[in-house]
Amino acid sequence: MNAVIDLLQSHRSIRKFKDVPLQPEHIDAIVGSAQMASTSSNVQAYSIIAVTDPEKKQELARFAGNQAYVEHSGLFLVFCADLYRLREATELNGETFHQNTESFIVATVDAALAAQNAAVAAESLGFGIVYIGGIRSAPEDVSRLLQLPELVYPVFGMCIGVPDQEPSARPRLPKQAVLHYNGYQADDVRQQVTTYDETMQEYYRTRTGGKTVTTWSRGIADKFRQPVRAHIRSFLEAQGFKLE
Amino acid sequence: MNAVIDLLQSHRSIRKFKDVPLQPEHIDAIVGSAQMASTSSNVQAYSIIAVTDPEKKQELARFAGNQAYVEHSGLFLVFCADLYRLREATELNGETFHQNTESFIVATVDAALAAQNAAVAAESLGFGIVYIGGIRSAPEDVSRLLQLPELVYPVFGMCIGVPDQEPSARPRLPKQAVLHYNGYQADDVRQQVTTYDETMQEYYRTRTGGKTVTTWSRGIADKFRQPVRAHIRSFLEAQGFKLE
Repeated sequence: MNAVIDLLQSHRSIRKFKDVPLQPEHIDAIVGSAQMASTSSNVQAYSIIAVTDPEKKQELARFAGNQAYVEHSGLFLVFCADLYRLREATELNGETFHQNTESFIVATVDAALAAQNAAVAAESLGFGIVYIGGIRSAPEDVSRLLQLPELVYPVFGMCIGVPDQEPSARPRLPKQAVLHYNGYQADDVRQQVTTYDETMQEYYRTRTGGKTVTTWSRGIADKFRQPVRAHIRSFLEAQGFKLE
Repeated sequence: MNAVIDLLQSHRSIRKFKDVPLQPEHIDAIVGSAQMASTSSNVQAYSIIAVTDPEKKQELARFAGNQAYVEHSGLFLVFCADLYRLREATELNGETFHQNTESFIVATVDAALAAQNAAVAAESLGFGIVYIGGIRSAPEDVSRLLQLPELVYPVFGMCIGVPDQEPSARPRLPKQAVLHYNGYQADDVRQQVTTYDETMQEYYRTRTGGKTVTTWSRGIADKFRQPVRAHIRSFLEAQGFKLE
């Protein structure tokens, strides 16, 4: 429909990068775009740590579960939900800061909106990106390495760099599965999952030369049949967040 | 630097729309763009409710704290974090679904990434948008109206439409306040807040013809000196989310 929509709809995650660091003017354009994303009541409850130190990138790659592309991307950004700045601003005015689950949601969403603008900006410049939720596997280690103060937590990382692979875009759920008109149609969900299972089975089969025969829902079941990252709640509490 | 970055950096929220509904092909392009945003391990843990029914829009405008533009926008979307579909997919495969704070974060972030792509797509088509966090003021009412099942919660709404105003972009925090290299510089935060207070004081003064003399940090203090939306935690529990 237009070039921006073509860009958005041709996104695929990149997990292999050429060894080229980003130029300062590219970082400026990416972070400047992140900053102009919407933010709840202009609170801007996020911070971005740009990791350029090779040793720190290496450590982060390990913390994220040995994802080598964290180390070998052109730029690694860690997007943090940040209530620390808001507490400082509140106390600067002689007031006591109150936080709860609502402010946790606000900060997490603000970080995500900024990140997605960064991703789009980076892709518009010809770079590839991949989100790294894996840093939540070792949030204490990440927070210590990046000296995150109380009330700041690392939501995810993002690798940005010159792509050294050309993966195809991954099919998504049928549009009717994610878009409901005027009310949620819960009765249709299983049928939509089954339809998507067929699409993804074909996609996996093609990508693996006929080998993989799993489905999307089987992958979901394998992931959620046990608790994932059960340490997050106690980490957040230790970091000063009150989820009440 | 390029047209996409210009678009991202010229964002401002629109709160007055012409009375023109969006065409189906525009909705398709916007939702198709939302669907191609990154998603944690391809779980796609969000759903979008497009509200076109005039009575429902009117009710949502009231739930959001009498924000008239919810009713009078060309399209109102409610972005929901959705673990219901993942539980269905898990149980379809004979497994028991486990959730916790981690899956809550994943679903909330997935909804936000999809939404920001929708926002960028809409703005690329010449529409204006504004996020409506106000629907979290009455999450039970919103959930009942939109028939949200267990494990689905409304994160925020979004008005999309033909702009009927031309607001200027709001200045953001200094770049150094949100971008740290290799580690968080907590010692600099108060100074950055003070710098931004001066910027925003001037911005408010210009916008109000010399009347407003508040600062950003004073606004933050006024917002956070008491708990905001303290009902969210118990609402989420009633909706089936386990924040443990």
